[in-house]
Amino acid sequence: MANYPTSETDRRIDAAALVDICKMIFTACKMNSEDAALLSDSLVHADLRGVHSHGVMRIPDYVHKLTVGGVNPIAAPTVLSHKKGAIVVDGNNNMGQIGASFAMDAAIGAAAENGIALVALRGSNHCGALDWFTLRAAEQGMIGIVGSNALPTMAPVGGRDKIVGMNPISIAIPGANEAPVVLDLAFGATAHGKIRVYHQKGLPIPDGWAFDANGEPTTDATIALSGLVQPAGGHKGIALAMMVGMLSTILSGAHYGTGLGDMVDGPIAGNDGQFFIAIDIAAFRPLAAFGADVDDIVSEIHNSARRDPNNALLVPGEMERQYEQDYAVDGILLPGLTLDDIKATGLKLGLDATQLAAV
Amino acid sequence: MANYPTSETDRRIDAAALVDICKMIFTACKMNSEDAALLSDSLVHADLRGVHSHGVMRIPDYVHKLTVGGVNPIAAPTVLSHKKGAIVVDGNNNMGQIGASFAMDAAIGAAAENGIALVALRGSNHCGALDWFTLRAAEQGMIGIVGSNALPTMAPVGGRDKIVGMNPISIAIPGANEAPVVLDLAFGATAHGKIRVYHQKGLPIPDGWAFDANGEPTTDATIALSGLVQPAGGHKGIALAMMVGMLSTILSGAHYGTGLGDMVDGPIAGNDGQFFIAIDIAAFRPLAAFGADVDDIVSEIHNSARRDPNNALLVPGEMERQYEQDYAVDGILLPGLTLDDIKATGLKLGLDATQLAAV
Repeated sequence: MANYPTSETDRRIDAAALVDICKMIFTACKMNSEDAALLSDSLVHADLRGVHSHGVMRIPDYVHKLTVGGVNPIAAPTVLSHKKGAIVVDGNNNMGQIGASFAMDAAIGAAAENGIALVALRGSNHCGALDWFTLRAAEQGMIGIVGSNALPTMAPVGGRDKIVGMNPISIAIPGANEAPVVLDLAFGATAHGKIRVYHQKGLPIPDGWAFDANGEPTTDATIALSGLVQPAGGHKGIALAMMVGMLSTILSGAHYGTGLGDMVDGPIAGNDGQFFIAIDIAAFRPLAAFGADVDDIVSEIHNSARRDPNNALLVPGEMERQYEQDYAVDGILLPGLTLDDIKATGLKLGLDATQLAAV
Repeated sequence: MANYPTSETDRRIDAAALVDICKMIFTACKMNSEDAALLSDSLVHADLRGVHSHGVMRIPDYVHKLTVGGVNPIAAPTVLSHKKGAIVVDGNNNMGQIGASFAMDAAIGAAAENGIALVALRGSNHCGALDWFTLRAAEQGMIGIVGSNALPTMAPVGGRDKIVGMNPISIAIPGANEAPVVLDLAFGATAHGKIRVYHQKGLPIPDGWAFDANGEPTTDATIALSGLVQPAGGHKGIALAMMVGMLSTILSGAHYGTGLGDMVDGPIAGNDGQFFIAIDIAAFRPLAAFGADVDDIVSEIHNSARRDPNNALLVPGEMERQYEQDYAVDGILLPGLTLDDIKATGLKLGLDATQLAAV
């Protein structure tokens, strides 16, 4: 998860109230109520877990996509083919979350029959935080593995052209008494948006984040923005990003990398792709025995020696879960700017100020 | 792949002659001829691809495992359960390659029926280079994804205890006219053996490779050896390593991390585990269309701008393939010490000098 700076303009908002406002906004974009609810839940899920980059700050962009950006708010996903554990779904160019939610459910259903299933999704768009899908598998006693193609921001090893995406992956593995262990990461050393934050503040970026346009390391945020994001883990990150991108696209005929678009003009609506794997643990081993092993692995980390005695050791997904628990009670802490943008977007769509009072 | 220093003592040896010697050695350890051939092919495959860390330099260690180390050279793998795409195999404590080869073939067979299959392997041991398995899937028009548990050499983020393995993964994706794109990597910033090489030479190790026993970065090779290997990509590498380790072990009841053993006493024979996923591309999309997309992705990288005009841009697995093509013609270049060790091991097992003439 990402840590975000807080400021005096931050305000707290109740998660359920935020979901309601999202639903009104997406319904005003012609989505049906069920799809609007899915999309809203995906965004607020990310904010609840402190991953604001994939939360409601996306609303202005999403509304743009839905109204003038070429995304079809009324399309329903369709199954193009289904052979036991192998399913191809077309999202038919609705928001990514709609096709992806359908695809994850299809993977879970087929895994219950076949032990494991993979759904390849085409006709998709940006589908939000991937752990929203993998955690759904974990709730069903399954392992979820989901990957997505992304706009290219990196170069191949030794290269200068922006042709490799950070292509994120999420994996969730359920415990017995412990919460699922869940990772959700992309293969950039940093997010593109973080470089923009440093740029706005006129600060140099940390070493290791970016290359200039010639592929040389830079700490100048301006140069970095016209250059390349460095991969996480060097050539290993580039190789993994390529694999996740290929698994996300070419099994279904979606568009890999530069076929999705570029960072200047953005993604081409409906060209994106994702993959969804569900593994039914009970088909391999009793779920309770598996879950007990997960709990032991979590405990081993919790009880191991700390570098700083004051910092508890966490497993992947645990920090996000702590945010989720706190924010569910105290309300989600969001920048005033984000909430103002949502209000302005809602008013432009014809909602009235009373409906938007909570933001 | 790893680059190794060459020296005046390096000698070239014909791959087929090397396989023959390996087979004689493993047969002398009581393996049957079929298993000895598999194990030999795995090792020489790695050397042919320039990945000598997983090649015949392992022979003295493997012979130790087979003769006095507790590995059972005559055990045959057995299927513990098989439900459509979900299979559990017990390697019954023969060398890892034997159970793993059986498991990969089972995954390929089940994927042909179900579109995708996962085989979880228990009762296993070190199974050599993982791309030996994933490339077998690629040859059958399938995507292969294989991971392994490994001895813990890293700490959790913010920790000091050696409880996370580098847990390698390989993914192979077949092209049409292009060779498969294949990665095979572990989640350490470096291999433990590389730190030993620097230590032997009395050189400082590069920044970013290791932590001392307190989890602080060090470039002192001696301190690094009693400390911790750094992960590739920081917390992302640790999270991915944990996931690969869990997928490799707890679906079958194999032993994760510290349950496998430690770097001082080595792995406990028969405790290791791996996972093997095969994805039948034709169940999703015509193989020719898929392969053409892979070829396009490879071409895009080959034709993209280079940082250094003299250095061609390669896709994952391509450098290893170039080694393979060169070494197949010219013979494999190996350190004299490695070949001397093989000869000494063979003589100790009762082979005569004529049989070992090629090394």
